[in-house]
Amino acid sequence: MTREEANAEAARRLCASTPRLTDVRPAGEVVPDMTARTILTAGPPMRWSDYTGGQRLAVIYGAIYEGLAETEEDADARLASGEITLGTCHAHGCVGSVAGIYTASMPVLVVENTEFGNTGFCNLYEGQSHRRLNYGVYDDEVRDGLRFLEHVVGPVLGEAVRHAGSIDLKPLMARAVRMGDELHSRNTAATTLLMKELTPHLIELALAGTVAPDALRRTVAFVSVNDYFFLRVGMAAAKATADAAHGVEGSSVVSAMTLSCKEFAIRISGLGDAWFRGPLPNVRAKLFHPYTEDDIEWIGGESMITETVGLGGFAQAAAFALQAYQGGSPQAMAAINEAMYGITVAEHSDFAIPYFGYRGTPVGIDVHKVVESKVLPVIDAGLAGRGGGQIGAGLLTAPLECFERAHRAFEQARAGTLATTPSV
Amino acid sequence: MTREEANAEAARRLCASTPRLTDVRPAGEVVPDMTARTILTAGPPMRWSDYTGGQRLAVIYGAIYEGLAETEEDADARLASGEITLGTCHAHGCVGSVAGIYTASMPVLVVENTEFGNTGFCNLYEGQSHRRLNYGVYDDEVRDGLRFLEHVVGPVLGEAVRHAGSIDLKPLMARAVRMGDELHSRNTAATTLLMKELTPHLIELALAGTVAPDALRRTVAFVSVNDYFFLRVGMAAAKATADAAHGVEGSSVVSAMTLSCKEFAIRISGLGDAWFRGPLPNVRAKLFHPYTEDDIEWIGGESMITETVGLGGFAQAAAFALQAYQGGSPQAMAAINEAMYGITVAEHSDFAIPYFGYRGTPVGIDVHKVVESKVLPVIDAGLAGRGGGQIGAGLLTAPLECFERAHRAFEQARAGTLATTPSV
Repeated sequence: MTREEANAEAARRLCASTPRLTDVRPAGEVVPDMTARTILTAGPPMRWSDYTGGQRLAVIYGAIYEGLAETEEDADARLASGEITLGTCHAHGCVGSVAGIYTASMPVLVVENTEFGNTGFCNLYEGQSHRRLNYGVYDDEVRDGLRFLEHVVGPVLGEAVRHAGSIDLKPLMARAVRMGDELHSRNTAATTLLMKELTPHLIELALAGTVAPDALRRTVAFVSVNDYFFLRVGMAAAKATADAAHGVEGSSVVSAMTLSCKEFAIRISGLGDAWFRGPLPNVRAKLFHPYTEDDIEWIGGESMITETVGLGGFAQAAAFALQAYQGGSPQAMAAINEAMYGITVAEHSDFAIPYFGYRGTPVGIDVHKVVESKVLPVIDAGLAGRGGGQIGAGLLTAPLECFERAHRAFEQARAGTLATTPSV
Repeated sequence: MTREEANAEAARRLCASTPRLTDVRPAGEVVPDMTARTILTAGPPMRWSDYTGGQRLAVIYGAIYEGLAETEEDADARLASGEITLGTCHAHGCVGSVAGIYTASMPVLVVENTEFGNTGFCNLYEGQSHRRLNYGVYDDEVRDGLRFLEHVVGPVLGEAVRHAGSIDLKPLMARAVRMGDELHSRNTAATTLLMKELTPHLIELALAGTVAPDALRRTVAFVSVNDYFFLRVGMAAAKATADAAHGVEGSSVVSAMTLSCKEFAIRISGLGDAWFRGPLPNVRAKLFHPYTEDDIEWIGGESMITETVGLGGFAQAAAFALQAYQGGSPQAMAAINEAMYGITVAEHSDFAIPYFGYRGTPVGIDVHKVVESKVLPVIDAGLAGRGGGQIGAGLLTAPLECFERAHRAFEQARAGTLATTPSV
């Protein structure tokens, strides 16, 4: 199989995937190798001592939330000793938003890729406040919000999804793209469409008295006011999709991108479990008043799994409304989107952009095309601030170094000289 | 007050209107001067003998549906004798989709313009079938569909809307425009957003046992699969809005456009109740297989009330997804939309087009600007076929003659020589 054939197969898998939301369950019940003492965070694998700033704090806060430690010092010690097991989201079938903290009791969306038989997970959106655990903040309000997800939203949604059997996400996501979402920084249509899918089942729960009326009311109210609710569903769907495209021998297509407090990293379909690391990304930010770019802190992030499957920055021309949130002009958004066709191997069969005459979104980022063209993948993203909290949004560009390293590894692999030890 | 000032006031009213959905009730209970023996239809006033083809048949079918006649011949005789009262939608605060048939038992959406204290009405969407009464078709299936609206959808929606108190439509419509609807030929986002608004109230009805579970289920299912459901809500909102801008002395802004089987007509804010008539519109159609333009039949239509308030053809650049349904390219849609700024007096304060950098939609069609520029208002519309049914969609252009006649009347009025008798 030539590289072109291998890349075509990877792209075929990205397009042919059929992610379906099948359940909402506590992470400890469904996430592979998730123990009661496991905490997951965003980024490629690192030693506990390498985590700094907001991401380090977010992990510590996760330990406290889960009752694995009493104080920050206690949590730090238990993480250092390994009594609390720190893992990375991607290694457990998960993707983490920003700091990406998962603990065993947090409810996760379970998305099965029925075409390929694999599953992706993501935990729930915490709500509109700029102060959230995934942005490195923890206080009574954040804790109460997480408990509300754990005790109310997760169980009610789980009942509704199980009543539905499953929710077919690809047509819903394709439709949302036609309705102005790029499904990374804009999820307004998808959230509303998801609610429409769930409504008949929520009504059945009400008619049957299966769930407490107040829990039902509060869950509906929570999803209704939170236009980003779908982001986590889309991330789980994208994870299930990207994982299905991983492991195609000879393919130079990117199957994951991730960010920690220290570095950006990518994984390649044909290069096993190795992460190819580089510096932190460049950013063009639109920040909430009164923040400046000096206030930005990198605390991790894996929502760019959406770009990996042809959404987000790769579908900006579907989402001109996004300019209000992350800046830029419609013309610039169209030009950025257009440029992504130059570094991808296919046009998506289902996600199509009305402004481009229903052309499929660019999908399947090719390491070789990135290195040759120096055109870097563009990522729509929320931005965290020093001291925690979201301070804005903007466009990230993935660093060239990751792609150059992956490219070298790929050439070595083709030559039969690649060391087989993953660079973890 | 100069004409410019009068037009600015008309445009202010178009923008400041606050349409709210407050109820769903049988037309006979709420539509002004609607008796048990009244039938309304689209277009400017005409004698019964002037109605031909599909629109004449649609009126007759309305009489049979309402039990006012047993046979087509019977209905014709009773309409000719005046025993059945034929009225026009606009004269009763209503707007009619295509043939626009209203009878007393049909449920109507009640939309109050709370800012100006007037009310607009529209009856309910019949569903996805190309064969519907508003497209001049009547058979057992059409009748059963209308009975379903009358006995199930209307009452359940009425309960839900009354439980809500009211649904604020302007923000919902503004949001739908940001989500790819132009709210004439595309209502996908607005329908979904309306369902989202109603969902908590539908759940309360389920919890309280206020409505029969099966009626609740069937209503939710009906609205969920019909992306055009919102069109009638938007039409009622637009009617309530346009009526508030009618009657500004000295204003040359169009306050209504209407179509019958014979002619197109417009009404002007500063020219009283007169309709200025012209020939049938030009059309650039995209027809369902296997129809051709020879198959198009004009049977009436007033959904262009949406264009009157700055939507539909005046918001095409918000709805590139529409190209699949009514043809054209994104570039052509943007150019058409852009041209409408040349014949309007304002940019809408709330309906904004992301692709135009959130510029407000062009609103307030000025008779003088149309006559001077010869740029004609563009209308997104569904198209009826000979023998009944929808056969496609396309772009209509309003005929210049209407505007020339209104322009002459306006100049006569300014000179104090206008005959005060409306041209009805």
